[in-house]
Amino acid sequence: MPLKMGVATVTMNRPPVNSLNTEHLETLHRTFIRLENEKCRGMILTSSSPTVFSAGLDIREMYKPELEKARKFWRTLQDMWLKLYSSPYPTVAAINGHAPAGGCLLSLSCEYRVIVPKVRMGLNETQLGIVAPQWFQDCMRNAIGEREAEKALIAGRMFSSEEALKVGLVDEIAQNKEECIQKAEAFLASQANLPMLARKTVKLGFRHQTLSRLLTGREADTKIFIDYIFQPKVQKGLEMYLQSLSKKAA
Amino acid sequence: MPLKMGVATVTMNRPPVNSLNTEHLETLHRTFIRLENEKCRGMILTSSSPTVFSAGLDIREMYKPELEKARKFWRTLQDMWLKLYSSPYPTVAAINGHAPAGGCLLSLSCEYRVIVPKVRMGLNETQLGIVAPQWFQDCMRNAIGEREAEKALIAGRMFSSEEALKVGLVDEIAQNKEECIQKAEAFLASQANLPMLARKTVKLGFRHQTLSRLLTGREADTKIFIDYIFQPKVQKGLEMYLQSLSKKAA
Amino acid sequence: MPLKMGVATVTMNRPPVNSLNTEHLETLHRTFIRLENEKCRGMILTSSSPTVFSAGLDIREMYKPELEKARKFWRTLQDMWLKLYSSPYPTVAAINGHAPAGGCLLSLSCEYRVIVPKVRMGLNETQLGIVAPQWFQDCMRNAIGEREAEKALIAGRMFSSEEALKVGLVDEIAQNKEECIQKAEAFLASQANLPMLARKTVKLGFRHQTLSRLLTGREADTKIFIDYIFQPKVQKGLEMYLQSLSKKAA
Repeated sequence: MPLKMGVATVTMNRPPVNSLNTEHLETLHRTFIRLENEKCRGMILTSSSPTVFSAGLDIREMYKPELEKARKFWRTLQDMWLKLYSSPYPTVAAINGHAPAGGCLLSLSCEYRVIVPKVRMGLNETQLGIVAPQWFQDCMRNAIGEREAEKALIAGRMFSSEEALKVGLVDEIAQNKEECIQKAEAFLASQANLPMLARKTVKLGFRHQTLSRLLTGREADTKIFIDYIFQPKVQKGLEMYLQSLSKKAA
Repeated sequence: MPLKMGVATVTMNRPPVNSLNTEHLETLHRTFIRLENEKCRGMILTSSSPTVFSAGLDIREMYKPELEKARKFWRTLQDMWLKLYSSPYPTVAAINGHAPAGGCLLSLSCEYRVIVPKVRMGLNETQLGIVAPQWFQDCMRNAIGEREAEKALIAGRMFSSEEALKVGLVDEIAQNKEECIQKAEAFLASQANLPMLARKTVKLGFRHQTLSRLLTGREADTKIFIDYIFQPKVQKGLEMYLQSLSKKAA
Repeated sequence: MPLKMGVATVTMNRPPVNSLNTEHLETLHRTFIRLENEKCRGMILTSSSPTVFSAGLDIREMYKPELEKARKFWRTLQDMWLKLYSSPYPTVAAINGHAPAGGCLLSLSCEYRVIVPKVRMGLNETQLGIVAPQWFQDCMRNAIGEREAEKALIAGRMFSSEEALKVGLVDEIAQNKEECIQKAEAFLASQANLPMLARKTVKLGFRHQTLSRLLTGREADTKIFIDYIFQPKVQKGLEMYLQSLSKKAA
C-alpha cells in the first residue's frame, strides 16, 4: 500500500481468490482506519490476482461454525463496510477480475468503479439460494436504481463488464489491468483539488440513510446470518460445495 | 389457463376490451390465489383481444353507484393487486394490445413486460381529470424512476411501444403477438432454475414498502374513490362518456 | 412579464448576472404569488442576459452580515422556492445562459428544462467549499436520480449542455435563445389542455416530500446558513473573492 502524494492503493492479496475471512476483513478494516487517521487523499481498491477481484465471503467461516467465531466474522464484515462506505477520502474500485457477492459489495462501497473487459460482477446470492443482506441490496439500489436493482437481485444476476457499464453498475471500462489503474488514478486526480471538508460532508449526507439502516439494525442483521448458517440444510450444502472445490483443486 | 411445466398463461377474455368490473377482478384474484396454492412456477398475463390488453377499470361500476357495490368493486381491485404484486411466483405481462390506466397497472404489477409494436400504454388518469391512486403511481415510479414518473403522471402520458422501451416502462418489444408470448416464456425460463424461496424473499423485500403503503392506508384509499364517484359533476361526466360509447357502438 | 393566453414569461433582469439578493428574491416571490392568484396557465422562467441565466445567490448578502438582514435573505430564498416548486401552474426554465448553484436551483424547481448550447449548469457548491442545502440536493436527486446526484454533488460538477441532456438534468437542447423560448412554449402548449386540478394534485403529490422536508426543518436550515456565514474564515474568503471581482471590473 504505497502512499503517493497522499493516494493509497490497497491491493487485496489473499490467494487464490481474495475470499474474505475474518482475518482478511480485519486487515481491510484496520487499513481503512489507518488511511483515515493519516489524512489519506484517495484510495484505490484492487486485487493482486490476475483473474479475480474478490470471490466474496469465505464460506469456510460458515462451515461447522462456532457461535462466537461466526458472530465475530459477521461483525467484522459490518465494521469493515461501515468504514469503507463512509470513508472521508475519495475511493475507487479498480475491478481487475471477477467480483461476485461480497466482492461486488466491496466495489459498490467505493465512490467510483472501473472494470477490465471480460469479467463478471454482481450480487448473485439468489442463485446460491441465499438472500443478500439488506445493506448489500441497498448499495446496489443506490448504484443502479430501484428497477434495475430489483431485476438483478431477484435473479442474482452476474453482469458482464459491458452490461455493468450500460446499467451504471460501473462507471468506466478499461482495456486492461494497467489502464484500469490509470483510470482509477484519473478519478482520484479529478477529486484532488476539491475542498475536502465540503466533499466529505456531501458524501456522508448521501450515504447516511444506508449507513443508519445497518447501524440501527445491526444485531438483527447478525442474527439473520447466524440463524441461517446454523441450519443443517445449509451446512449440508456448504459441505457439498467445499468437497467439489477440493476435487477441482486435486 | 393451461399449466405447462408449472407455467400458467392467464388470458384475460372479457370482450370487447377486458375492462375490469368486479366480477372480472374477482376472477383474476381467485386465479392468482389458485396459482399460489398450486405452487405455480411462473405466470404470463395476456389478453385474448387482438388490439387491447386491458382498457382498465370498467366505468359502469362507477356510474349511478350504490355505496356497498362501489366499495366492493374497489376492495376487489385492491385485493387482486395485492396478490399479483406480491406473488411468490415469477410474473410477466405479454402486452399484446393497448394498456391504459388500470390495464397499465396490471402490467406494472408483473415483474417483466414485453409489448407488441404500435400500441400505447400508460397511466393516463390525469387526461381524464382523475388523480391516479397512490399505489398506481408507486408502481410507475418503481418502474421508471422519480423524474420520468413525475413527467408521465403529471401529463397522463400514453407511451408508444418504442417510448415505453426507451424509458424502461417495458423490458422488450416483440415483433408480433406470437413473439410476445415467446419472449414472455423466455423470461420465465430464465427464472426457472433459481432457488424459489430466496427469489421470492428478495422480491417481497423490494415490494414491501409499496404493498405496506396500500395496506396501511387501504380504507383511506377506498374513501377517496367513493367520495370521488359520488360527486354529481363526476356522474355527469360518466353519463356523457357512456352515451358517446353507445353511439359509437350503434 | 406579458401574459399571452394565460402564459407568463418571467425574465430575470438584474444585470450583470442575475445574482439573487433579497430584493430580487422578493420580486420573484411576489411574481409567483401573483401568477397563482391570476390563475396563470403556465410560466417560462428565463433571463435578459445574453450569457447568464442566473449566477446564483448574491454573496454580497453574506459579506459583513447583520443577523436580521442575513436571516431575512435566507427566509426569502426559502419562501420563493416553496412557491415556485409547488406552483399550481406548469413551469419551464428556458436556460439561456450559465446556471451555477442557486441559478441551477431555480431551473430545477421548474417542471421542464430547455437549455441553449455551450453553457454550464450545476450545483457547484462543493467546489467553493460549501455544502449545498439539503433541499438544493433533493431537487437534483429528484431530477437525475440517486447515483448521478451523488457523483455530481460530491464533486460540485458543472455540466455542459450536452452532459446535462445526457444525464437528464435538462429535457431538451435548443439551437439558440429564440428556439429555447419556442421549445419552452411548446412544453406549455402540451400541458394546456390537461385538466388543471388533477394535474396540480399529481404534481404536489410528487413534490410533497421534498417540500415537507424543508418546511419541517426550516429553522434548522436557516441556522446552518447563519452559522456558516458568521465564521471569520468564511468572511475572509468572501472578502478575497469580492476583491478579485472588483479588480476584474476595473
